[in-house]
Order: sequence, then C-alpha cells, then structure tokens
Amino acid sequence: MKHAVVLLSGGIDSTTTLAIAIAQGYATYVLSFDYGQRHSLELEAARRVAKSLGAKEHRTVKIDNGIFGGSALTDNVDVPKGRSEKEITAGVPITYVPARNTVFLSYALAWAEVLGTFDIFIGINALDYSGYPDCRPEFITAFENLANLATKSGVEGQRFRIHAPLISLSKGEIIRCGTELGVDFSLTHSCYDPTADGRACGRCDSCQIRRKGFREARLQDPIAYA
Amino acid sequence: MKHAVVLLSGGIDSTTTLAIAIAQGYATYVLSFDYGQRHSLELEAARRVAKSLGAKEHRTVKIDNGIFGGSALTDNVDVPKGRSEKEITAGVPITYVPARNTVFLSYALAWAEVLGTFDIFIGINALDYSGYPDCRPEFITAFENLANLATKSGVEGQRFRIHAPLISLSKGEIIRCGTELGVDFSLTHSCYDPTADGRACGRCDSCQIRRKGFREARLQDPIAYA
Repeated sequence: MKHAVVLLSGGIDSTTTLAIAIAQGYATYVLSFDYGQRHSLELEAARRVAKSLGAKEHRTVKIDNGIFGGSALTDNVDVPKGRSEKEITAGVPITYVPARNTVFLSYALAWAEVLGTFDIFIGINALDYSGYPDCRPEFITAFENLANLATKSGVEGQRFRIHAPLISLSKGEIIRCGTELGVDFSLTHSCYDPTADGRACGRCDSCQIRRKGFREARLQDPIAYA
Repeated sequence: MKHAVVLLSGGIDSTTTLAIAIAQGYATYVLSFDYGQRHSLELEAARRVAKSLGAKEHRTVKIDNGIFGGSALTDNVDVPKGRSEKEITAGVPITYVPARNTVFLSYALAWAEVLGTFDIFIGINALDYSGYPDCRPEFITAFENLANLATKSGVEGQRFRIHAPLISLSKGEIIRCGTELGVDFSLTHSCYDPTADGRACGRCDSCQIRRKGFREARLQDPIAYA
C-alpha cells in the first residue's frame, strides 16, 4: 500500500485534501499543529475529521515559544470582520502567520523521511488565499526542490512529491469535490473567531470565503453560525 | 543596529558562527532546539555560549512528538566509535537526523520575519560533514530561494539571506577563526555519546573530527575526555 503524510488543519481544504489522498489509495499519516492559534477548535475538528475519514495515524505537534508571533491568528489582535471580497483578496492578510507552511512542510518532510514515504499532501489553494505567499504554486515547487536536496532520501535518488491537489480550485469546486468523496463538512471548522460556545462568527474572512463556497457549490453549509 | 537570527547547537561550528555574526556587528537572536537528542549537554553548552558571547536573546525551542526518529542521535541506536576518516566521510552517517536543518531554518525564518530581520546565520560546514545532505551549499541556496517565496517580507521585496560563513572551512580553520574572535571553546560540547559525568567520549565521529581540528589548528582542546 502507498503511504503519504497529509497536513490537516480541520478546515474544508485540508479535510478535502485528506479525502483525496485516501481516495487515491494512500494510507495516510496525518499531521496537525498546535501553534497557539486562537481558534483551537480547529484541532478538535482535525481529530474528528482524521477519525471519520479513516486516517492510519494522526499526530498533533505542538509548536512552542510563540515563534509564530505577529499574526492576528496567534496574537491579541482583532480579526477583521465583514470585509468585502476586494478587501479580503488585496495584499497579505493580517491573518498571515510568518513562515507557517514552511514550518509545517518541514515537519511533514521529517516525518515522511522517518516513515520512508515520499508523498506529502497539503491543502493550499491559490485562488481564495491569493494573499498568502506560502499558498502559491511557486512556493510548492521551491519546497519540493529543497526537500530533494535536504534529505538522505533525496540524495539517494528518491523524489519527494508535494501534492497540492486544490491549488487551482475555487472554494465551490473544493466543496463539491469533498462532497463527492463523502466528506462530512459538519465536522470541519473554518472560523478565525468563534463564539465561546464554538459557533462560527460568519463574518471573518475565513467564514465569508466558506459561505461563498457553499453558495457557489449550491450546497447547504451544515455548521451553525452565531 | 543590524539584527540577525543565529542557530546555535553549542558545538564548535555554531559557536564560531555566533562569534562571527557578533563580530560583523549584528545584535543576535539565538535559537537552539531540544529535539530529544541523546547528547542534551549540547543545550547547556548553548546556554553558556550564548551568555558568554553576549547574545541579545536566546530561545530554546522544543520539538516534540519524536518526529525526528530514525537517527542514532535521537533513537536507542549505538553511536559508532573509533571509525576511520574514510568511514566517517563515506555516505550519509547514521547520525543524520531527517530534515533537521530544514526544520531548524524554518523556525529561524519564522522568528526572523516576526522580528523584522532578514539575516539568518547557520554554522553548517560542507567539508567535515560532507555526508549530511543539509550541510551543502546547494541546500542553503534552495532554502534562501524558498524563504523569499514563502514569506510576506519576501513578497514585499525584502531579501532573506542565509549566512553560512563556515561552509568551506576545515575544522582547523574554524577553530583558528573562533579563537581569533575570542571564543572560549571550553564552553562548547561536541560529543555524541558523553559519559554520565559529562566528559566527551573522544571516539565518536564528532569527537574525532573535533580532535583532528584542534591538531590541525595547532591548539590545545580545552575540554576533558573520558
């Protein structure tokens, strides 16, 4: 059986990516990160999703020491609400977390090499998250190049492959794809600023992108909003 | 004042690298990692060294979950002893830790971006550690390329620079350089398999490379051997 490491946040994109990896026949080693994100409901969602989809193993790695300061997702900074689509897609968002996907993929690479597997899946998307530098195809290409230079396996002729199956899909297409693969999106979490009882705010950038995606997909979003 | 992030293990190379960064006028933000290495005396050495050389800040980041399994440095595998120079330099050593420098540099990149600094120093060396894929110049070039694609700062036109000032020096040259910069090598730790009372074994690859370096430099190694 083929094996792959899959990064999973517990949102729509990484959940669909995990479903795609499993549908492609991979036994999946799933990796989530506790990096002091304010929306730690993500991690509970990741656990539910990994179990529901039948991941072979799920690890949550703690990233300590506040190394990821400087983002509205980790610091005590207001998450923007009710922004227009133009505002959401202009420039690098304040929810950008410095070098996050680089750190996440580095861990995935380390674990993949330990497991002896060379396929890594990441649910990045260049359309709805165009402001994030580490969600672009050129970032993936650069990391793949690095991975093959940085490792014993790479030197010995193995080729690491970073799979980003959602890179050019719209949110609506991602939701349709996940639905066809049997994903239960009620298990996922997207909101950057949920209420105390765990409901999504409906107005942060992430909620707005999610809701627009379900509208595009002509499907009902199964989660509760505040 | 210029600022830089410097990776510090507490061995000869990273200690000399820190001394070089300081001599070049950088205020230094020093980063060490607790990754379950068997020779945790390294971390004590790193703390002593950072203090002695006058680092501006020193953080030790814990890498959890045994993600770095598969190495004689982290697992319960015998560290090789008494190998010949030919054996030490042939192939990838069993003390190779999967993707270690990739993970370390990713953290350094995240911290650098949070600090608003674009200079990162790493004490890798392509001569004495020729078997480690992530100690080669092409690895550094690939990481620099990645850093500038992966980050908000890179997208906005800043250039991250990964400084590897020791990359083409011999161990003897590194020791002479450090000595000229006032490094107290009695504070450093190199051994992969120290005795219970903290003395270096003298026979692992790292001790052998260190001792050869001091011989080449025609200097006395100030540490105690078993």
